[in-house]
Amino acid sequence: MPTPAELHQDGLALTPPMGWNSWNSFGGNISQQAIFETADAMVATGLKAAGYEYLVIDDVWHGCRSEDGFLQEDRKKFPDGMKAVADYVHSKGLKYGMYSDAGVKTCAGKPGSFGFEKQDAQQFAKWEIDFLKYDYCYAPDDWQTAIGLYNRMGGELRATGRKIVFSVCEWGVRSPWLWAAQAGGHLWRATFDVVNKWDAPQNCNKGIGILTAIDRMSGLEKFAGPGGWNDPDMLTIGLKPNDNVGIGKTCNEHEQRTQFSMWCLLAAPLMIGCDIRNMSPLSREILLNTEAIAVNQDPLGKQGVCVSRVGPMEVWKKPLTGDRLAVALLNRDEHEQPIAAAWPDLELPEGQAMKLRDLWSHKDLGQFKDSFSKSVQPHECVLLLMTP
Amino acid sequence: MPTPAELHQDGLALTPPMGWNSWNSFGGNISQQAIFETADAMVATGLKAAGYEYLVIDDVWHGCRSEDGFLQEDRKKFPDGMKAVADYVHSKGLKYGMYSDAGVKTCAGKPGSFGFEKQDAQQFAKWEIDFLKYDYCYAPDDWQTAIGLYNRMGGELRATGRKIVFSVCEWGVRSPWLWAAQAGGHLWRATFDVVNKWDAPQNCNKGIGILTAIDRMSGLEKFAGPGGWNDPDMLTIGLKPNDNVGIGKTCNEHEQRTQFSMWCLLAAPLMIGCDIRNMSPLSREILLNTEAIAVNQDPLGKQGVCVSRVGPMEVWKKPLTGDRLAVALLNRDEHEQPIAAAWPDLELPEGQAMKLRDLWSHKDLGQFKDSFSKSVQPHECVLLLMTP
Repeated sequence: MPTPAELHQDGLALTPPMGWNSWNSFGGNISQQAIFETADAMVATGLKAAGYEYLVIDDVWHGCRSEDGFLQEDRKKFPDGMKAVADYVHSKGLKYGMYSDAGVKTCAGKPGSFGFEKQDAQQFAKWEIDFLKYDYCYAPDDWQTAIGLYNRMGGELRATGRKIVFSVCEWGVRSPWLWAAQAGGHLWRATFDVVNKWDAPQNCNKGIGILTAIDRMSGLEKFAGPGGWNDPDMLTIGLKPNDNVGIGKTCNEHEQRTQFSMWCLLAAPLMIGCDIRNMSPLSREILLNTEAIAVNQDPLGKQGVCVSRVGPMEVWKKPLTGDRLAVALLNRDEHEQPIAAAWPDLELPEGQAMKLRDLWSHKDLGQFKDSFSKSVQPHECVLLLMTP
Repeated sequence: MPTPAELHQDGLALTPPMGWNSWNSFGGNISQQAIFETADAMVATGLKAAGYEYLVIDDVWHGCRSEDGFLQEDRKKFPDGMKAVADYVHSKGLKYGMYSDAGVKTCAGKPGSFGFEKQDAQQFAKWEIDFLKYDYCYAPDDWQTAIGLYNRMGGELRATGRKIVFSVCEWGVRSPWLWAAQAGGHLWRATFDVVNKWDAPQNCNKGIGILTAIDRMSGLEKFAGPGGWNDPDMLTIGLKPNDNVGIGKTCNEHEQRTQFSMWCLLAAPLMIGCDIRNMSPLSREILLNTEAIAVNQDPLGKQGVCVSRVGPMEVWKKPLTGDRLAVALLNRDEHEQPIAAAWPDLELPEGQAMKLRDLWSHKDLGQFKDSFSKSVQPHECVLLLMTP
């Protein structure tokens, strides 16, 4: 089977895409001003330097379709027009992304691209976008239609001649890992929407929790690699209770670090959801952990897997270039627990000396030969780099 | 979208299939003698009276194909031939099931049905089988092929004119809940193989644990109903450490009861895997819990869903006929925990009086109006029947 990169031949998304998306914090309350400020903040905060490059506006940017069927922006929200927004974002050295839907309407009821794929792709290319998130509301449930519609938009995007990362957002119901890369997708959602909760199951209410998103990624590792990624949805780090998907909650410090550790280990796209104009010191520290980001962006492009589970204590590993490993010790329990990474579980030869570094304390831990054990706080995830 | 029963129009599997399958305890070590004894035991132990009707032999029953391409049984294992086995099983008032594979070989390397679908369906019908488990080893990974191959065998089975329950076993990788009923399937695996472990993730080693199987069912509830069921794989209850998928482990009493409670609540097929000729009193008590079975076999055919999760404490509900509910209180923790089923989570009106019955102690608990709370042991699952 050809790899995603071989299918695309476009050099895009050779490592998991990184950026910011408007939905989690702004919802429908986006505006030209907010986007300009966010672009400024991506540079000023160092996020851009750390690798976050795509600034993506999500749903509810739309006006009505024009009489000749072209999508138009809401001029109240974007008085200078969408091209001016793209220009501003590009002027900061960032890439610009937008959102549409394969059905007749977007999830928030705006005009969908169904039947208008060619025109919409042309309009997006005219606006000079670099990323399209393509949702699946108001569209038929069956897989044949879904695959057909994603193929149609993927083809139209390609036909514009512009290099556009295509984000397939059908929520993992129709096994997109099997067909999304072929349809032109560079990332595909493996899960329903993640909300700002540690733990909410797939079928409870409207959003799933961080743990459930992690679990949904298991078993999909063989489908991910340079050019195409399983996507457990956006980061909820830094969301405030009254943000769009803040749902009145906050995740604690351990839980936020754990989301970042695990998204990095899973080679997940890193799309920030919080309002980066007003980040807390904690959000900054987490989102700008360049050692964790290096795990995510390792050019080998392997999605990490769970190699040991004892009740709520898990060990995960992600192979990296240079025979290195990233290893996560994840404590899902409500109690502090010791977790051991044993060499056989990591498929390391017995007696193999490995240098360990803690990627949150940013300290070398010394050399170990058979196993490494550490006491892990409730909901904490220790992220380690292991070098031969 | 038509329901599975509307698609099939055959009256089969209107409630989740119940029976016994040879794989978990016998593996390749099956024989005519063992099957005859198992058929006897299904009657003598009361399993048949409790609703278990399908006796299914799994892989490794095969001899070579005949010169004209028909499957033949291994005459060393089945000296009187497969038809004699079917006759014996039928003589006990049971139904008989067999196993094949959509690829060129079965998972254990025996002849697969690829390219021989018509002949194999005819041979199975000649042997008078009532159930076919159809695996997906040695077959292409892509969904188009998988769907095509299951459609092909589904059509050939139907063309024989014999009523045969079709068990689609591609392990949930290609979202079979979307297409298996249309291909003629009456149940379809939602997960990789379950082994005799409480907790092993989808990607660890070769088999998943009970908890992971439960989690994989979440979100699929809308695809299940009379005529077609999501299948989290066979019951591991009663397996011994040296059984085929016993993997050197046993699950404790709570864990075994929990598997049964949750399989019943999830409207999962109930296929016993242990050696029923030698059941322990505990295995008997669990597998013959007719009150739990009634939850599984309720004619409404709803798959239960998780309605509340607080850390490792979960509440699940399954709507039943007569405005009744089955409710499970599941403690995934290593510590005893109180778990509360609150009326709003169950979508019951405030103040609505419900009579509660514990389906493991088989005792009425009285009438409750707003919530019910109980202390639940580690890995225990309290199964309740609620009646207005």
